[in-house]
Amino acid sequence: MTKTLKGIAASDGFAHAPAYLLVEPDLSFKKVTIKDEAAEIKRLQAAIAQADSELTKIRDQAQQTLGEEEAQVFDAHKMILADPEFTGAIEQQVKDQKVNAEQALHDVSTNFIAMFEAMTDNKYMQERAADVRDVTKRVMSHLLQVSLPNPALIDHEVIIVAHDLTPSDTAQLNKKYVKAFVTDIGGRTAHSAIMARSLEIPAIVGTDTITQDVQNDQDMIVDGVNGEAVLEPAAADIQHYQKLAEDYAQEKAEWAKLKTAASVTADGKHFDVAANIGTPKDLVGANDNGAEAIGLYRTEFLYMDSAELPSEDDQFEAYKEVLEGMKGKPVVVRTMDIGGDKHLPYLPLPEEMNPFLGYRAIRISLDRQDIFRTQLRALLRASAYGKLRIMFPMIATLQEFRQAKGILQEEMAKLKAEGIAYDEQELQVGIMIEIPAAAVLADQFAKEVDFFSIGTNDLIQYTMAADRGNEHVSYLYQPYNPSILRLIKNVIDAAHKEGKWVGMCGEAAGDSTMVPLLLGMGLDEYSMSATSILRVRSLMKHLDTQELQDLVEQATNVSLSNEENEKLVAQFVKEHRH
Amino acid sequence: MTKTLKGIAASDGFAHAPAYLLVEPDLSFKKVTIKDEAAEIKRLQAAIAQADSELTKIRDQAQQTLGEEEAQVFDAHKMILADPEFTGAIEQQVKDQKVNAEQALHDVSTNFIAMFEAMTDNKYMQERAADVRDVTKRVMSHLLQVSLPNPALIDHEVIIVAHDLTPSDTAQLNKKYVKAFVTDIGGRTAHSAIMARSLEIPAIVGTDTITQDVQNDQDMIVDGVNGEAVLEPAAADIQHYQKLAEDYAQEKAEWAKLKTAASVTADGKHFDVAANIGTPKDLVGANDNGAEAIGLYRTEFLYMDSAELPSEDDQFEAYKEVLEGMKGKPVVVRTMDIGGDKHLPYLPLPEEMNPFLGYRAIRISLDRQDIFRTQLRALLRASAYGKLRIMFPMIATLQEFRQAKGILQEEMAKLKAEGIAYDEQELQVGIMIEIPAAAVLADQFAKEVDFFSIGTNDLIQYTMAADRGNEHVSYLYQPYNPSILRLIKNVIDAAHKEGKWVGMCGEAAGDSTMVPLLLGMGLDEYSMSATSILRVRSLMKHLDTQELQDLVEQATNVSLSNEENEKLVAQFVKEHRH
Repeated sequence: MTKTLKGIAASDGFAHAPAYLLVEPDLSFKKVTIKDEAAEIKRLQAAIAQADSELTKIRDQAQQTLGEEEAQVFDAHKMILADPEFTGAIEQQVKDQKVNAEQALHDVSTNFIAMFEAMTDNKYMQERAADVRDVTKRVMSHLLQVSLPNPALIDHEVIIVAHDLTPSDTAQLNKKYVKAFVTDIGGRTAHSAIMARSLEIPAIVGTDTITQDVQNDQDMIVDGVNGEAVLEPAAADIQHYQKLAEDYAQEKAEWAKLKTAASVTADGKHFDVAANIGTPKDLVGANDNGAEAIGLYRTEFLYMDSAELPSEDDQFEAYKEVLEGMKGKPVVVRTMDIGGDKHLPYLPLPEEMNPFLGYRAIRISLDRQDIFRTQLRALLRASAYGKLRIMFPMIATLQEFRQAKGILQEEMAKLKAEGIAYDEQELQVGIMIEIPAAAVLADQFAKEVDFFSIGTNDLIQYTMAADRGNEHVSYLYQPYNPSILRLIKNVIDAAHKEGKWVGMCGEAAGDSTMVPLLLGMGLDEYSMSATSILRVRSLMKHLDTQELQDLVEQATNVSLSNEENEKLVAQFVKEHRH
Repeated sequence: MTKTLKGIAASDGFAHAPAYLLVEPDLSFKKVTIKDEAAEIKRLQAAIAQADSELTKIRDQAQQTLGEEEAQVFDAHKMILADPEFTGAIEQQVKDQKVNAEQALHDVSTNFIAMFEAMTDNKYMQERAADVRDVTKRVMSHLLQVSLPNPALIDHEVIIVAHDLTPSDTAQLNKKYVKAFVTDIGGRTAHSAIMARSLEIPAIVGTDTITQDVQNDQDMIVDGVNGEAVLEPAAADIQHYQKLAEDYAQEKAEWAKLKTAASVTADGKHFDVAANIGTPKDLVGANDNGAEAIGLYRTEFLYMDSAELPSEDDQFEAYKEVLEGMKGKPVVVRTMDIGGDKHLPYLPLPEEMNPFLGYRAIRISLDRQDIFRTQLRALLRASAYGKLRIMFPMIATLQEFRQAKGILQEEMAKLKAEGIAYDEQELQVGIMIEIPAAAVLADQFAKEVDFFSIGTNDLIQYTMAADRGNEHVSYLYQPYNPSILRLIKNVIDAAHKEGKWVGMCGEAAGDSTMVPLLLGMGLDEYSMSATSILRVRSLMKHLDTQELQDLVEQATNVSLSNEENEKLVAQFVKEHRH
């Protein structure tokens, strides 16, 4: 029976392949007192042998498809299985306690995990706890004769079906064979959705029930444009979606022609379409997709990918690489945005009841000026190699901005005294608008900053008082809610009144519903995942900013809801596409 | 040496008395291998005997000053000390392990606590864990020969000095002898500050270091009006503060005359000054202070003070008591505001990373309509006995309000069909404005609600993206920040345009800096702790709303900060007091 499931369209494109369920099987068991210890130990040894040979297979497959580094994880697993301290202890437990192998495995591994986790002064050994957990799961699956999903073993085209996809899940996937993702939970800003867009594979998230509705190997179609999954499609369905996929491919081919084009609307207005990046490596994608600027360089990866605070020189090299790589195009660098859900192992932060409302981003930088000044010096030195814009995140008050800018000016003066070059002419200093207070006071900020960049994810989260990662309130993540649109419009109008420019670097900047509204409001720069650039540039080509004025007026002053605005824009684009 | 410490003025008034340090002593110890077990057991027994006789004294004192119920807590403690399973196990541990009594006490009590806490199906036994903890602390203090603070033993006038005051600390205090509180942490909205205001004793919070600066029994003065504590005051200081205290007493006597007066400004405009209450018992204070209405009845206490969901009849009785007690004056009842930092033992809520941005208040009510409908029925039935206004908390979108009101109308229709009376004429339905989205869209909401009530604590928290309970970002709790004032003004203007009234039930409604601004904006109802009513009514008498227009204009459009506005208002009130 053909069945269609609706979810949230998280990444464009179409796929047709069998389902691959990436779901943890039930590994629960009962404690049993055994009589025949020798037989039980044999059963244990057989399970260990099966687990070991499975690991060998996975390791080889992983090496071929994912590379040597990913494969080595499985060597560590094999070593645990070969360690007599581990396996011997399990056998001993069976003998001493006369319990079934499952219970003995559980008891011994619990001890090992606790022991490793207690080694708080040795990070390497601490991480071994995760390996013991994985190996235990694998042996347990053989004892219970259920099968674990082994994503590294995938050797044919599949559509991955999962409750959710974590970063470590995706790291194990062979991108060659994964044609699409479908998950139970998540929204357009979930990790799995962002990952799918950056890999350019179709994805649907938030279906609620896909893991229960689909069987392993069941035939399915994913329509990532409309957010629909079709299970057991009939011949007519397959034909229908093939046509859609062909049209989509043609559209993408059209987009590709826009790589070297400027971003111009139907009425000839030019806007900047820019890329968000996390590391200098991401420049390739940005340039391949014709980014006109870097609208957001998230420097926290420099801190997160390091075992200690990155030195001024290390930071300088990274910033310089990005500025040089952009060959004179503007690069907006956001200063350290740590805290909230981002932590550094070497920078202990206070335990907080509501970390999103806590000690994070500029609040840490103003408090830990040692860290902040190092970053600012590195940025200033790099500014000599391109067109740098420094951006402070999570600014709530004008006093915070003045303090941050004051520190920057002190560092400039020091560099000058030391005779070290930095961009004294064109360097700009701006802020993220992601806290409602700053959006409301945009007129006051606009007099003192060089630019704004609107961070929609946080702005929505605070304006609606709803954590976007919390599934119980995810219905309140409403980018098109009139309150959000009014705040955005207020920011743009206030900036333009002072002759300043405004960008957006949140998810919404690449969103097809949002772009017409933002164009109508006159937003200057649109910064997004590199893979969205051409789609947005194409969309701009077909819109007339004069006609969009009415749409903006409707959406901010007449419409009463997020959903109403979504329909309003869809209808408008249909009727006014040039 | 006289020393003056600045803090946050949390509750008005003056006090002069010796300090009483309510600070946990250091109870840490080292594990020691002992040789003479008999001597160690003797030492243990002596400590237990001392603890027991101390408990007898505390129990008697508590009975006299606090009442029998509070005293019984200490009976439970004495029973643990008399239990051979507990004390015998400690002696056995000394003998078996050859460890010092401190270590043995620690080991045995840790086991007992774990055992009690594991009894998840027996709440009574689970709570015994806290008793074991308290008793262990007391015996440990005698072993280590340090003294525990025993607030129940206070028998002379003191000023309590503490890092912070928890609800259970304050429950143990004899209000007769406690002349003031001073704490290290907290702001005007901390529990200790609210408690001090409701007890009408002076308090200073957020001094940072008072517990380190003051010695037990040191002479000190508390000036709760200016937020200053003077340690070891000289004769001249004492005289100075006596004068201030006399002036203040005179001012209070003036206020007392306003108990039956209406709240009228110097130019003859009338506003409503109302009380916030938590239980029907609080009506006494509200009426004694001449409240013109109940601006906020927090119904969550009905849920929190109960072992299970309160029945419709139990709720009806409470609501009816309040409505009847107010004799036809308006009563605004807020529907259940659970979640965030308020939990019910019998209503498990999801673990959340940011509970303040999570599943709470109306979000739970709309999801758990069984609970919501019971409350609405009880409210509707009670509406026949007075002037009820039903208020929904944490409304973010118009759709939420419509849904909540729709459910209310369904319950009305059912009652009507059942022939049960409710107020069909005058019942009003409104919302809290505490989420920025609702403040921004006040014009849209104003067309559909009967009234607004602004909740400043949450509105500030979300608008500034700062948890007000988090000391690392407490500098961002800025009630006078121009962004907050603009949002408040927007709400008031939008409501008045539709002929609706606006109240405020957050801390700010009783704040002497905020009241002139709110009067200038035309806020209709000011709801606060009952003990603030007369002060605010007196302040209103001296202000002219016409003159305040300029102040509002300055504060919302010219001023750049919270501090600037604080000074602006102080200066204005000084110059324009009638």
